[in-house]
Amino acid sequence: MITVLTGGTGGAKFVEGLRQLVPAEELTLIVNTGDDLLWWGLYASPDLDSITYTLAGKLSQERGWGVHGDTFHCLQTMGQLGQPIWFHAGDRDLATHILRSKLLADGETLSEVTAEIAARFGIKARILPMTNARVETRVLTPIGEISFEEYFVERWYQDPVESVRFAGASDAEPAPGVIEAIRSADAVLLAPSNPVTSIGPILAVPGIREALRECRSRTVAVSPIVGRAPVSGPAGILLTAQGFEVSIAGVAEFYGDFLDLLVVDSQDAPAAEELRKTGVRVHCTPAMMRTLEDRVALARAVLAVALHSSAAPAGPERP
Amino acid sequence: MITVLTGGTGGAKFVEGLRQLVPAEELTLIVNTGDDLLWWGLYASPDLDSITYTLAGKLSQERGWGVHGDTFHCLQTMGQLGQPIWFHAGDRDLATHILRSKLLADGETLSEVTAEIAARFGIKARILPMTNARVETRVLTPIGEISFEEYFVERWYQDPVESVRFAGASDAEPAPGVIEAIRSADAVLLAPSNPVTSIGPILAVPGIREALRECRSRTVAVSPIVGRAPVSGPAGILLTAQGFEVSIAGVAEFYGDFLDLLVVDSQDAPAAEELRKTGVRVHCTPAMMRTLEDRVALARAVLAVALHSSAAPAGPERP
Repeated sequence: MITVLTGGTGGAKFVEGLRQLVPAEELTLIVNTGDDLLWWGLYASPDLDSITYTLAGKLSQERGWGVHGDTFHCLQTMGQLGQPIWFHAGDRDLATHILRSKLLADGETLSEVTAEIAARFGIKARILPMTNARVETRVLTPIGEISFEEYFVERWYQDPVESVRFAGASDAEPAPGVIEAIRSADAVLLAPSNPVTSIGPILAVPGIREALRECRSRTVAVSPIVGRAPVSGPAGILLTAQGFEVSIAGVAEFYGDFLDLLVVDSQDAPAAEELRKTGVRVHCTPAMMRTLEDRVALARAVLAVALHSSAAPAGPERP
Repeated sequence: MITVLTGGTGGAKFVEGLRQLVPAEELTLIVNTGDDLLWWGLYASPDLDSITYTLAGKLSQERGWGVHGDTFHCLQTMGQLGQPIWFHAGDRDLATHILRSKLLADGETLSEVTAEIAARFGIKARILPMTNARVETRVLTPIGEISFEEYFVERWYQDPVESVRFAGASDAEPAPGVIEAIRSADAVLLAPSNPVTSIGPILAVPGIREALRECRSRTVAVSPIVGRAPVSGPAGILLTAQGFEVSIAGVAEFYGDFLDLLVVDSQDAPAAEELRKTGVRVHCTPAMMRTLEDRVALARAVLAVALHSSAAPAGPERP
C-alpha cells in the first residue's frame, strides 16, 4: 500500500507517474482541500479534481488542470453576464462541480462525494480529502487577507505575502481513512507539491502530522524546490513568508519532524551533500517532470528508495 | 403598454414577433413557472429561459429552446457520470441556471433574479414570473403523478393523462407587478401557448384570473389549436383530459370568463363562424408561425385587434 499526500499541479504530475507503476487498488491519495472554493455557488475542489482527472486519464496535459480538450462556453457566457471568470471552470469540468455540489447538498460528506465521483470516473485508487471539514488557506497580503485561489489564480501571485493560515484547520478532523492510510502504508510519499499551501493544509489538520511522525513505514518527500527556486508557482514566496529557506534544506526543515528521506533533483547533488551533514537522508535523481517518461522515472526512483530498506544512503549518490 | 401571458415554445415564437413591433419598454411578459425544476440541483425555469433568450436574440430557432449555437459538453459528461440527461441543458444555457441558482441561494426572489438576469442580457422589456412561490404542474398518468417536465420532456408525452394539477398554486401570490401589469395594460395578450399547462398555471395563481376579468383593456388570446389539433405538443391531450374540446371552441371555453376576443388561424374560418353564433368574438388571420415574417405578421394582426376599438367584428373576416 502506497499513501501519497498531494496537491497542486506538481502533485498531479507525480501521481500521473505513480499510477503507471502502482496497482490502483494499492494507491491512496490524501488530497489538499485548502484551495476549495464556492465558485458561482458551486463547490469546486481544485486539487481533488486534478487528482481525479489524473487517475481517470482525463487531465489536460497542456494546462496541468481541468479536463483534456474541454471547452469554456459556460464560462464565456458567465463573463458576458458580468460574473467573475478568473477560475477557469470548463464545460466538462463543470459536471464535476455540479455533481459534487448536488451530492453535498443532499447531505453526503466530502469523502463520500469524492469516492462516488471517483467511482463514476472508473477510478480504483482511493482518493481521500484531507478532511470533511471546511478548511480554507488564507493568504495575508497588503490588500488584505484573501483566499489562496484568489491569491494564486485570480491575482497570479503578484502580491507580497505576509503570512499564510489555514482557517478552520484547528477544529477539523482527518477524513475517515486518512490516519489509517498513513499508519498502514508500506510507504508514505509527499508529492513535489508546494509545501506551504498544498501539503501544509494537510499537515495542519490535527492528528495527521502526528500519524506521519509515528508511522512504521518510510516517509519520503520529493522536493518541489530545485536549486534556489520552485519548479513552478509561488512555493518560493510562500516558504520565505513562513520563514523557511528556498532550497532543499528549507523543504527538509519544513518536513523535519517526520521526514525519513528527501528526494531532490540531480542538479542539487552538492546541496544534498551539505544537507546530509545535518543528518538528513537525501536521494538525488532527475526530478524535473516534463514528459510522461520523466514522471514515471521519478515515481520509480521514489518508490525504490521508499520501499527498500537499503535505500537510505549515507553518502552521495548519482542517478 | 402591452402585457402578455406566455409559456412554452408557441409563446416564445409569438413574443419573437411582438418584440419586433412593440418598444421593449412597453412590453411586459408574465411567464409560466409551473415547469420549473431542480436539475442537477440547479434551479431551471424553462419558460423564463425561453422568453429571456428570445428577447436577447439568443434563442435557438432550430430547437425552439435553449441558446443558439450551444454545445452540450457538460451534459455529455454528466451522462458519462451516470446522471440523468433528459433535460437538455446546454453549456451556455447552464450559465443562466447556475446564476439563477446562486442568486436564489443568496436570498433574492425569483422576480429579482429574473430581472437581474434579463438586465445582464441587455433586455429592456419586463419579464415577470407569474409568482415567486413554488408552483409545480403535476400530471397524473397510469404510472403515477409526475412533473410536467417529466411528462413532456423525459417521456415525450406518451403517457395517457388522467388529470393535471398545479401543486402549490392555491397558496401562491402573484409576483410583484403582475396584477398591476394586467390592470394597467392597453392590451392583455395570451400567447398561443398550451392553455392547460403553459397559461393554466398562471391562471391558477389566486388573483390573476380575477384581474383578467376585471381589467379595462381588451384581453385577446391566440389559439394554439388549428383545426382539431395543436400546432405542436400535447395541448390536445391535455385539453381533453381537462374536459375541453380540442378546437377553437374549446380554447374559447377555457378562457371564457375573461376572453374578449380569440384570434384563430384563417383555416378555422368556418369554425369561427360557428363560434361567433355563441357570442364569442373571433378574428381570423394566418396564425402558423414558421418564419420570422409569420411571427411578425401574427403579432401585428393581434395588436391591431387588441388595440383598436373597431376590431371587434360582428361578422366573418378574411385575412
